[in-house]
Amino acid sequence: MKFSNMFIPTTKEAPKDATLASHQYLVRGGFVNQVGAGIYNFMPLGKIVLEKIRAIVKEEMDNSGANEVQMGFVTPTSLWEESGRANTMGPELLKFKDRKNASFVLSPTNEEALVDMVNNRITSYKDLPINLYQINTKFRDEARPRFGLMRGREFLMKDAYSFHDSQEDLVREFNLMEETYKKVYERLGLEFRVVEADSGAIGGSGSKEFMILANSGEDTIVVCDSCDYGANIEAATRKVLKKEPLQTTEIKKVHTPNLKSIEEVTNFLEVDPYYSIKAVIKKAIFEDKTQTVVFFVRGTDELEETKACGAVGAIELEDATEQDLKDANLLAGFCGIVNFPKDIKVVFDKELKDENSVVCGANEVDYHLTGVDLTKFDLEFADLIAVKHGDTCACCGGILSHTKGIEAGHIFQLGTKYSSAMNATFLDANGKAQPFIMGCYGIGVSRLVAAVIEQNHDEKGCIWTKATAPFMVDIIVSNAKKDEELEVGVDIYNQLKQAGIETILDDRKNARFGFKMGDFELIGFPFAVVVGKKLKDGMVEIVNRKTLEKTEVLITEVVSKLEELIK
Amino acid sequence: MKFSNMFIPTTKEAPKDATLASHQYLVRGGFVNQVGAGIYNFMPLGKIVLEKIRAIVKEEMDNSGANEVQMGFVTPTSLWEESGRANTMGPELLKFKDRKNASFVLSPTNEEALVDMVNNRITSYKDLPINLYQINTKFRDEARPRFGLMRGREFLMKDAYSFHDSQEDLVREFNLMEETYKKVYERLGLEFRVVEADSGAIGGSGSKEFMILANSGEDTIVVCDSCDYGANIEAATRKVLKKEPLQTTEIKKVHTPNLKSIEEVTNFLEVDPYYSIKAVIKKAIFEDKTQTVVFFVRGTDELEETKACGAVGAIELEDATEQDLKDANLLAGFCGIVNFPKDIKVVFDKELKDENSVVCGANEVDYHLTGVDLTKFDLEFADLIAVKHGDTCACCGGILSHTKGIEAGHIFQLGTKYSSAMNATFLDANGKAQPFIMGCYGIGVSRLVAAVIEQNHDEKGCIWTKATAPFMVDIIVSNAKKDEELEVGVDIYNQLKQAGIETILDDRKNARFGFKMGDFELIGFPFAVVVGKKLKDGMVEIVNRKTLEKTEVLITEVVSKLEELIK
Repeated sequence: MKFSNMFIPTTKEAPKDATLASHQYLVRGGFVNQVGAGIYNFMPLGKIVLEKIRAIVKEEMDNSGANEVQMGFVTPTSLWEESGRANTMGPELLKFKDRKNASFVLSPTNEEALVDMVNNRITSYKDLPINLYQINTKFRDEARPRFGLMRGREFLMKDAYSFHDSQEDLVREFNLMEETYKKVYERLGLEFRVVEADSGAIGGSGSKEFMILANSGEDTIVVCDSCDYGANIEAATRKVLKKEPLQTTEIKKVHTPNLKSIEEVTNFLEVDPYYSIKAVIKKAIFEDKTQTVVFFVRGTDELEETKACGAVGAIELEDATEQDLKDANLLAGFCGIVNFPKDIKVVFDKELKDENSVVCGANEVDYHLTGVDLTKFDLEFADLIAVKHGDTCACCGGILSHTKGIEAGHIFQLGTKYSSAMNATFLDANGKAQPFIMGCYGIGVSRLVAAVIEQNHDEKGCIWTKATAPFMVDIIVSNAKKDEELEVGVDIYNQLKQAGIETILDDRKNARFGFKMGDFELIGFPFAVVVGKKLKDGMVEIVNRKTLEKTEVLITEVVSKLEELIK
Repeated sequence: MKFSNMFIPTTKEAPKDATLASHQYLVRGGFVNQVGAGIYNFMPLGKIVLEKIRAIVKEEMDNSGANEVQMGFVTPTSLWEESGRANTMGPELLKFKDRKNASFVLSPTNEEALVDMVNNRITSYKDLPINLYQINTKFRDEARPRFGLMRGREFLMKDAYSFHDSQEDLVREFNLMEETYKKVYERLGLEFRVVEADSGAIGGSGSKEFMILANSGEDTIVVCDSCDYGANIEAATRKVLKKEPLQTTEIKKVHTPNLKSIEEVTNFLEVDPYYSIKAVIKKAIFEDKTQTVVFFVRGTDELEETKACGAVGAIELEDATEQDLKDANLLAGFCGIVNFPKDIKVVFDKELKDENSVVCGANEVDYHLTGVDLTKFDLEFADLIAVKHGDTCACCGGILSHTKGIEAGHIFQLGTKYSSAMNATFLDANGKAQPFIMGCYGIGVSRLVAAVIEQNHDEKGCIWTKATAPFMVDIIVSNAKKDEELEVGVDIYNQLKQAGIETILDDRKNARFGFKMGDFELIGFPFAVVVGKKLKDGMVEIVNRKTLEKTEVLITEVVSKLEELIK
């Protein structure tokens, strides 16, 4: 392809709101342009990258034996009412009416539509398992679309849905999908981690996320320095640090004027903060109500909100306001379990189960209690804590640390959540109707375009991996008005094409060398061949975009040299 | 691929509303399923066909030098307001509000979005021409979605938009697109006709349609039996039949009691109906008003509504009601040009320009006039007539006839309609700002899936062309429970795979031979290989789906025989 025949509108100006490198460079490099909040067009170079990623995803999904389908993007709201998600998804689910006043949604995901497709078409266990996938546009009306392609409203996603007659078979497919996904990210040339994850609004039991490692990632991942363990902070666990239990004592009320923080209180009382508990007071939003909830964690821990939200089955948690505290008869800084208001929901972190002598608030201003024996209360426990940097790995005893990742894939063991709700069944070997056991599996295809750049860029621009580069080589003809330069460029271009190397020829007559070099660096083709002043010695220059190293080679050897570099 | 690993839910039941063969067979064959009015899912076999067609369209577009892009499906209504189409498109343009109350549309076509993409990114004539295309989902909120994939609301379309600095260059690209489209339909194995067309709501000057010939086609096409001429009836022209002018006479009022039709009146008056004119009274719907309009055509002709609509610049025409006639002081059956109500818009067919003595209504019940000299009136003329079967070809003098076609492509010379409205300009060689000169080019990709079947089917089911078949060969293992049959099937399957022939193996153990044969005929793979009772003689049977011919061949020769047949 020739530069002069392609629409590649590079620019020096990044969008004002672009904080991420991928957002800046994809716009500046002429890959994408914004049409509305969270909605992007892919211009020619961006479309090539997107299609390369799509092709790899498709190939690996086909290799796994999954069948490709294509669902309607517009789906009737009635399907979402059957599953109950018409309400629970909230305003991210964009609903609208057609000219006949029928209600539809723009699909953000397609569990319901797939259950509807399979229901009554697969009737026997003999026709199971099946895994159906599509690579299609999705829409999620995000409250704050941002970061360019990273968190858009309209995006391209690969979504797959599998149907099984047993949990074991689901687990087999789930593991196959994990392997399939690993192949995808490996082929894309990305550094990634498979981590344990929270299932969130999609539901189901087990789920894993595929995290592209990048400092700018929105997700915090907990990884072990010694073994393979990795988990989203929302689902991470650790080896419990168990200190010697204290001797039980009488409950004592202590005057702690103006001492509210764990540090202040335990310092004052000369107690190891490990033996204190702290209350985190939240407003939990449910489908049909709003309710104040108190979560107790160890004084040395922090609450993990997604875990806490899941523990009470809420849609989301908000910080409680002063008015909420007043209404609930709760005192910030002095909240404890003794004389706790009866009508307020309370959950304890499960690591506190055996504590027999802790410090906590006295539910009275300026007072705390010591010697509180939690085993004497009838309490509800759940995993509530955020695993910390330096905690111990439950798998191997190694040290856990935090890193940042971009969620680029998520696989779920759904079970019968959707098939039961929608009454979708098959006949098992005994002729009995059973709800389908389901898995679902997503890859953010357009998000991956950005993720590649978050992981691979420098201060000059993009650095595409070999599998994602729109072209492998950019032949820069320094001065395309000079026939001899242009001819050599065209000649190398033809040779590379014949060698099967995807090449673009920068033959623009109205652009100077420096401008072309700037475009090469900004766009980020893996290699450039500069045809310029060394021509009189029969030489051209190969530039490696990643290292920015320059190597002079004989024109006669440029193809073999590039073949070697690309290997 | 094995049948047992694919989701191919064939069924005996066709949808109740399915009148077209493609609608019935694509649903019955498990290619598509309906999710809502005019919205279809593509199941695995349907998706393969769709992708084959998409790939051919993409390849030919790339060969033409066009650049692939991908536009947001959701676009801001503000873009449509700039062009004026937010109002003129009517309710087919589906508008909705997002959670922040911003207005968007589901793209039915993308002229505005492309102008917006190119504007300010191409600033000089030196960067022209460029042709940008995408193959992407579209939505048109049809009042009456019907015929399955033929007239859906959500559909897959290839749309391309070219930008030029001169009309000559636009014509060059327009012709290139015509050739590109021809290659697409030829490669798909379709019988088609390129015809002159009306530009309709898209606008612009010249336009051509690509009609897949099929009896069920919704479009009437006029074709010449002697030359290449073809046109949609909405745009067809003919050689004017010119009869001897009559001698001018005085206007005479004749009593014609209860004679309303042209035949009755001209019989009674003993006049050649060629010398009569008839009024067609319509209600024209404009963007901002509704107005009664009278169209006069020769007594021997019929009004062509699309032409008539274009002649007055209306959005559409409806039949006038009795009340409309009353309000306009018009008399059905007795309407004429003498004493015609002054405030009513009237247009004459251009072939009536020189008529100096015609019969028409007297605008008085039971009276007609003879000897009316049209040249004495100040009239507006336009092409209004529907070319008839048997009319004379204007190009060669041959005989024109009507045939039916499915519109599967449409190319337009838009000119500056959109660039002017949206103020999108480039600097010409003199440094002067000029609006881009544009073309646009569409192919109905999902509609083509149906069109292939409309042209290629029989009473048993689909007959896919070689380029569109989901698999070329279906190996039917008569009784897959018999190991020897299954082994031979698998062996032939592996050989065919190695020979690069796309093959599906019907290895289903829970389906009988007759059922598998029925599926083969319904789905319409080009060839079947039946592995069954002839096995003991070392023979299998090849079935040709189109001719239903059966040929026994030695197992050792089946691959070479199929290779020969496929060539």
